[in-house]
Amino acid sequence: MIHPQQPSGMPVAKYVPFQDQITVDLPDRTWPTKVISKAPRWCAVDLRDGNQALIDPMSPDRKKRMFDLLVRMGYKEIEVGFPSASQTDYDFVRELIEGHHIPDDVTIQVLTQCRDHLVERTFDAIRGSKQAIVHFYNSTSVLQRRVVFGMDQDGIIDIALQGARLCRKLEETIPDTKVYYEYSPESYTGTELDFAVRICNEVIDVIDPTPDHKMIVNLPATVEMATPNVYADSIEWMIRHLDRRESVVVSLHPHNDRGTGVAAAELGYLAGADRIEGCLFGNGERTGNVDLVTLGMNLFSQGIDPEIDFSDLDEIRRTVEHCNQLPVGERHPWGGDLVFTAFSGSHQDAIKKGFEAMEREAKQTGKSIDELVWGVPYLPIDPHDVGRSYEAVVRVNSQSGKGGVAYILKSEHQLDLPRRLQIEFSGVVQAKTDTEGGEVTPRELWDVFKDEYLPAKDGETNDWGRFTPVSHTLVSGENGQDRITATMLDHGAEVTVEGSGNGPIAAFIDALSTLGIDVRVLDYAEHALSAGGDARAAAYVECAVGDRVLWGVGLHSSIVKASLTAILSAVNRAERDAA
Amino acid sequence: MIHPQQPSGMPVAKYVPFQDQITVDLPDRTWPTKVISKAPRWCAVDLRDGNQALIDPMSPDRKKRMFDLLVRMGYKEIEVGFPSASQTDYDFVRELIEGHHIPDDVTIQVLTQCRDHLVERTFDAIRGSKQAIVHFYNSTSVLQRRVVFGMDQDGIIDIALQGARLCRKLEETIPDTKVYYEYSPESYTGTELDFAVRICNEVIDVIDPTPDHKMIVNLPATVEMATPNVYADSIEWMIRHLDRRESVVVSLHPHNDRGTGVAAAELGYLAGADRIEGCLFGNGERTGNVDLVTLGMNLFSQGIDPEIDFSDLDEIRRTVEHCNQLPVGERHPWGGDLVFTAFSGSHQDAIKKGFEAMEREAKQTGKSIDELVWGVPYLPIDPHDVGRSYEAVVRVNSQSGKGGVAYILKSEHQLDLPRRLQIEFSGVVQAKTDTEGGEVTPRELWDVFKDEYLPAKDGETNDWGRFTPVSHTLVSGENGQDRITATMLDHGAEVTVEGSGNGPIAAFIDALSTLGIDVRVLDYAEHALSAGGDARAAAYVECAVGDRVLWGVGLHSSIVKASLTAILSAVNRAERDAA
Repeated sequence: MIHPQQPSGMPVAKYVPFQDQITVDLPDRTWPTKVISKAPRWCAVDLRDGNQALIDPMSPDRKKRMFDLLVRMGYKEIEVGFPSASQTDYDFVRELIEGHHIPDDVTIQVLTQCRDHLVERTFDAIRGSKQAIVHFYNSTSVLQRRVVFGMDQDGIIDIALQGARLCRKLEETIPDTKVYYEYSPESYTGTELDFAVRICNEVIDVIDPTPDHKMIVNLPATVEMATPNVYADSIEWMIRHLDRRESVVVSLHPHNDRGTGVAAAELGYLAGADRIEGCLFGNGERTGNVDLVTLGMNLFSQGIDPEIDFSDLDEIRRTVEHCNQLPVGERHPWGGDLVFTAFSGSHQDAIKKGFEAMEREAKQTGKSIDELVWGVPYLPIDPHDVGRSYEAVVRVNSQSGKGGVAYILKSEHQLDLPRRLQIEFSGVVQAKTDTEGGEVTPRELWDVFKDEYLPAKDGETNDWGRFTPVSHTLVSGENGQDRITATMLDHGAEVTVEGSGNGPIAAFIDALSTLGIDVRVLDYAEHALSAGGDARAAAYVECAVGDRVLWGVGLHSSIVKASLTAILSAVNRAERDAA
Repeated sequence: MIHPQQPSGMPVAKYVPFQDQITVDLPDRTWPTKVISKAPRWCAVDLRDGNQALIDPMSPDRKKRMFDLLVRMGYKEIEVGFPSASQTDYDFVRELIEGHHIPDDVTIQVLTQCRDHLVERTFDAIRGSKQAIVHFYNSTSVLQRRVVFGMDQDGIIDIALQGARLCRKLEETIPDTKVYYEYSPESYTGTELDFAVRICNEVIDVIDPTPDHKMIVNLPATVEMATPNVYADSIEWMIRHLDRRESVVVSLHPHNDRGTGVAAAELGYLAGADRIEGCLFGNGERTGNVDLVTLGMNLFSQGIDPEIDFSDLDEIRRTVEHCNQLPVGERHPWGGDLVFTAFSGSHQDAIKKGFEAMEREAKQTGKSIDELVWGVPYLPIDPHDVGRSYEAVVRVNSQSGKGGVAYILKSEHQLDLPRRLQIEFSGVVQAKTDTEGGEVTPRELWDVFKDEYLPAKDGETNDWGRFTPVSHTLVSGENGQDRITATMLDHGAEVTVEGSGNGPIAAFIDALSTLGIDVRVLDYAEHALSAGGDARAAAYVECAVGDRVLWGVGLHSSIVKASLTAILSAVNRAERDAA
């Protein structure tokens, strides 16, 4: 204010502003006046750029799950690996082809450097596929030319052209596969534009694409180096100078080093690009590739069909988290746990009024809510459109002012609730205590928790819900199958059910199905309550019971018993609410 | 390719494109030609917008830690709460003032709605402070006017002006405090521009700012509704139409619903704004406020002093994670665990050559590396500038192709390594096995792990390192202080040390200091290896030992013993490397 900020002392002199490294000059740019009106061509690179950046690369099983997910969502171009660099990638591509896992309308893409033996191996990998995109690249940036290759521009162009020529030659050895090409001047953002367009045009000349058989020119922000408007300027400049525009598909491949990958993709698309490469939830090297979920949902929220199905976003997220073994952040756009949540009273009030206005309008016009234009403050879309729901979370302060729901359960009862259960339980507290952000004692909070999730006393009849656990026996077979015999009280009457599955939980769910109970486990967490001889375990399961999604909790010295009780907890809660 | 993408079936008709809701027309925009050359005025709103969006709001202690961190980093304007809406916020503001915790060159800011009793309570809250910014707001969007307020434009303007007039009046009741004003037309992005500028100009007229005593006009993207270039256009349009520009500070407050909050802030700043409000690592309602760390580091990477000190980014992140109880994602720009990590062989090779080129240049010019212009592929900055280091991670596949380091340790040994330990251990595996992404058996991997982190046999002399744990006794005093007496072998000779602290680990570290060992615990994780009577616990500690940061691991049936062994593991590793 009156006192200005001070120099930080950080070594800024080590860094050169982007505009002093690379010139991007386009005063007559047209992209800022344009508006996005349709989805681009998407290419999902989760199985290559994404997989390449994981501490633990995907197992074949996880790769297959990712591939199937991408196909199911509607992606038609999927980069499936770098088969010449990795035996597991090679094997995976072969399995896709030989196992006939690639639908006819899906084109796989494989990456290769421009070196002869790698290109040859790449063509071996795709043999037998109906069609494939061979994506070849070499680094073109000023920095890499100097420190990595020690080559001038002509030398770098030779590498690309030699690759391109070999590709055209090898194409003849797999006549049953329709081969398309993609060329990337890698580290494009650090490349002088006139050199970038020169190398691309020379490659185009060798590949010789036609309007009926186009090639892809991909312009990666391998490292994000400037504000996203500069990337857009460079894309518009390139498009003006690329040869045979009618035979070329211009593709973007933004990374997210500056946190502006989504913006770079959107502004670059406004600038005239046709296609975008990225990963679900932004997996990829370092800060990740641009996030395909955010890009697609951004279109959807503007009334533009993303041509990708995001209607079960939680399922997409679970699969991605399983495949990548990396969590999606709580505040990740569209998919994070907290993005359809309102904490402040004024937000909750406005949202409530927005819902009421829509209900009134529906009544007046005789339409359903889904036929109206969406208009609820602080909720840019209807959460139901992606299988989510709006959560009004009242934050409960303990009387000591020492924190809320999660803090109290953790500090007083050693329960470390998963984030989504925290949110669910906050809603339960709100409903039961009818407080508006006021004070609740830790004791009241614990009573609400027990009453909602835990049986009053293990093994005895109580009014907890339909089922009370009694006992179970579990037999693990040599084939990895568990067989369970479980005895419970069902509305007070003892029943015994049997089931089997690849673990105690699966077996128990199988057993419950004999009573007509339909449960799927969506998420699972457990932890010890204390270490040592007196250890008890807490199990938390997120279940789909019928068409509802809700959590169950179980506490027991046996982790198996805790898990099974947690499932009954979820089932009982669903039955109570239905009653 | 040949097969186009298909309609998704998602209900796109529910949504209206932004340009059909709000007109932003600025064909002669000038911002795309501009370049950022200095830091904006920053305002950190972690203690208000950030805190308001936490499941568990910050305790007074966590609030104080956040405030101290922001001051230490160099923020001069800090929004500290919404004192009229929350007793704990009110109490915190009073404690800051009465405890004399606000440095003379820092200005606190408090938020209030424009309702009389709230404004009055707000002025009560800031009484006694040297200076303060009173930030008043009301919602102005088309949607909120219709569904929340049921008011026309004039009614909404009356709310704002009544608030402004009351502020000017109440100012006289606290003559010892220099009061500045900020006005926000909340939900600005959903407001017609001509109405937004009208209400702002009328408020400016009432507040009557001067070039020597300016007021702030804040234009929040309360909900991000369009691509970031549209926000920039709207800011440039507003600036052209705002009265008394020389007396007004134009401020941005972007949220991140579309994942383009950073871009909106940068392009809006190019468009002529003076000031940016945000939160560290992008905490805040739903998808969060714009991330102040990314914005500041983006400037730094362009050779522009952010006027904020990010030189110990890990410490900043740890404090933020502690205060918010939310993790910072692995791929979060500049601060995530994986952002200075390279997995692919070609990236690692290029980085190695970049480092070599810098070393050659340093030798030739007689300068230190820090005096040279930074130029290493795939590393946009020198990680050391933020207290990090570059990690080349070789991914190790087990022979079954079933995953890597983390997977094997988890599936075969029940060890759930924290992410940064996974990265560290991958480096250890690379150094010890000298494999280049090849195959390692689970047995080899376990041998490397034991050899690096675990004593060969607990309590016996071995060549594990300098210290071998023998026994300890722990006494917990009534004052919350633990006192420990620990016996160890130091180079084979038995020593007994004593120390005290607010827990066993703190006490043990105190005891070690008597041997001249300087350890600080940076991060800590533990879990049970199994539940039930045979439970063992694993403890992982990230320690600063002298000027090195490294992990230690301890396994024991007692969680205390496991923790202390983990600290010795880290100390021994540091001593071995120093030897």
